[in-house]
Amino acid sequence: METIVYSNLRDIDGRGIGIRCRGPRIEAVSPGLTAPDAVDCGGRLVLPAFVEPHVHLDKTLWGEDWVPGPRAATLRDYIENERRVLAANTTPPEVRAGRLLSEMLRHGTTAVRSHVDVAPDIGLAHVDAMLRLREAWAERVDLQFVAFPQQGLLSRPGTADLMREAIALGVETVGGLDPAGIDGDPEGQLRFIFDLATTTGAGIDIHLHDPGDLGAWQVERIADHTDASGLAGRVMISHAYCLGMIPMDRLERIGRRLADLRISLMTSAPAETAVPPVAELVDLGVTVCCGSDGIRDAWSPFGTGDMLERAFLTAYRFDWNTDDDFRRALDCATGAAARAIGIADHGLRPGARADFVMIDAETAGDAVCRRPAGRRVVRRGKLVTG
Amino acid sequence: METIVYSNLRDIDGRGIGIRCRGPRIEAVSPGLTAPDAVDCGGRLVLPAFVEPHVHLDKTLWGEDWVPGPRAATLRDYIENERRVLAANTTPPEVRAGRLLSEMLRHGTTAVRSHVDVAPDIGLAHVDAMLRLREAWAERVDLQFVAFPQQGLLSRPGTADLMREAIALGVETVGGLDPAGIDGDPEGQLRFIFDLATTTGAGIDIHLHDPGDLGAWQVERIADHTDASGLAGRVMISHAYCLGMIPMDRLERIGRRLADLRISLMTSAPAETAVPPVAELVDLGVTVCCGSDGIRDAWSPFGTGDMLERAFLTAYRFDWNTDDDFRRALDCATGAAARAIGIADHGLRPGARADFVMIDAETAGDAVCRRPAGRRVVRRGKLVTG
Repeated sequence: METIVYSNLRDIDGRGIGIRCRGPRIEAVSPGLTAPDAVDCGGRLVLPAFVEPHVHLDKTLWGEDWVPGPRAATLRDYIENERRVLAANTTPPEVRAGRLLSEMLRHGTTAVRSHVDVAPDIGLAHVDAMLRLREAWAERVDLQFVAFPQQGLLSRPGTADLMREAIALGVETVGGLDPAGIDGDPEGQLRFIFDLATTTGAGIDIHLHDPGDLGAWQVERIADHTDASGLAGRVMISHAYCLGMIPMDRLERIGRRLADLRISLMTSAPAETAVPPVAELVDLGVTVCCGSDGIRDAWSPFGTGDMLERAFLTAYRFDWNTDDDFRRALDCATGAAARAIGIADHGLRPGARADFVMIDAETAGDAVCRRPAGRRVVRRGKLVTG
Repeated sequence: METIVYSNLRDIDGRGIGIRCRGPRIEAVSPGLTAPDAVDCGGRLVLPAFVEPHVHLDKTLWGEDWVPGPRAATLRDYIENERRVLAANTTPPEVRAGRLLSEMLRHGTTAVRSHVDVAPDIGLAHVDAMLRLREAWAERVDLQFVAFPQQGLLSRPGTADLMREAIALGVETVGGLDPAGIDGDPEGQLRFIFDLATTTGAGIDIHLHDPGDLGAWQVERIADHTDASGLAGRVMISHAYCLGMIPMDRLERIGRRLADLRISLMTSAPAETAVPPVAELVDLGVTVCCGSDGIRDAWSPFGTGDMLERAFLTAYRFDWNTDDDFRRALDCATGAAARAIGIADHGLRPGARADFVMIDAETAGDAVCRRPAGRRVVRRGKLVTG
């Protein structure tokens, strides 16, 4: 296997380091490490490659003509608007998604979890497209998928069977959507999801937008089901705005439970709604990551595929200011994101996959605040951009 | 005077236009306008140049070694932290500020209002430095200044005299700072500010962080003083978080009064505090602009000098989504910002100053969401970058 040494890098603590890769793995990381034929990295800041823990690749309109953002009031309006927009679009989902993946890789992301819609009017078309995309991109980006019941699960007859088929086809995670707010049957939806996951070995990732007490109660029920099913470490709750709406003593109780059951949280760090208090939850031991959610799609024209921008928005959302804050923001987009989606061997350490990104920045804070372009990205030991 | 035609541009409404400049002014803007020796602009989106209505150039550490963000709890902590950081810095303020101005111009900003600290321990040193900067940059960027009592006005003896001297030296706007929260004497501070402005012909720009009812009451008192002093159209209130904390009926009453008196508002659109509801205030006829506030200084490491990023953060802050929303966001950083700081002849129309920026984007929304680099900037009719 080929050995490549990247020298003259700076780590997040400011130390000058080098990284020796043997084939697709990191063999050594140490201060001053170099070699006669080392790739001189010009003192750039090096981070583990970005991990995108929550995106909707099948929905993106990246590279299409501009579609104005929707004037939608309710979740149902958004869902209807998306059906209209996608029905009018003739570009195959894997083409749109592939364009976006190119952007993501260029910015330094080499692992992605994408939700994929399953619904009676779509069938498994999006799943099939994303599985083709995964095959085409296998060398460049690790893709994992969530079967996502965008239009409702129990409340949309036919969806449950499609979810089962999607998992059978190779989708590795069972999705959910507001068991109370969308399906009106929280126990029913959760029972279905956890049954499907336990019988197939799949993980779970639930979109939870329901607010306040209604949302927090569902977080507690998800914890109960996780515990009862023996799925500790396999469950993620996405958005969970409710955790930003409850008193701190209840948040602490819930946070400790999430930490115990290794249930991870994902936030896109929106500004106009409550969000889970990331720093407090991380301090309680919860794995919290930041994700893009939709990128340039019928739901929202925002998003660029740059996880460094998402880390910036997370820091901006909470008015994070100190060096520790910026480290935490970057962890949300790298280490914590990897753990949240079940990637164990991600990081700048011997034995880990040799996926990392070099940024022309002075410190973690400088990287987050300026988000310089011209990243150099190493994938499985080899430079793929820059 | 030289005539230069910029052809093959797209305006914010999607029309293909050309712009004919005669010397420093726009002579014509019309669909399809071109000329044999026109500069072909490749179909780029064109906007009036960005206007930065609120920055603290004298405080910036742009281009200096990274300074970690402060762990400060109170406004007084921040002020003390800044004194320590700037005391340890040996680069002249005009050098640091000049580096930042280069960035701002590169991104498309050609007019800037900067606050400049006056305080007993600083004297007029920052004012002198900024006046030198203005002279050096006169051809490239229009600079106007606000004498800013960062450490308090009446509560910091000696500051009032320095404010008078600053105005006498050529600073055109009288600043203020939380008349209640910092000085503890709202009527005293407002009387001083309005007296100084009326006797010298200066404008007024008041930092108001005081929250809720205390802040809203001061907004009303500022309106009273503006009315009584005949200073309608010459007053800006910066931040005014309080306007995001009061009931909508009171906001409407205050908003109508601000519109009548042409008192403008500036927000940096922070996410972790209440902010003036921009869309509602604009609908009431208030001129609301967005500004950077401090850029990479002892208060905060955030900021890049790119007003398109500020427009993005404003849209992100309010979850703005539609094409009208994005137009409003861009207006906050161009037309409204110009009006707010008293520049009358800014815009893409005959007779206006020929300052504009071309962006490789499809629509207003595309520009805001992606913020492409490689801007082309025209200053007084001539390409200065790109």
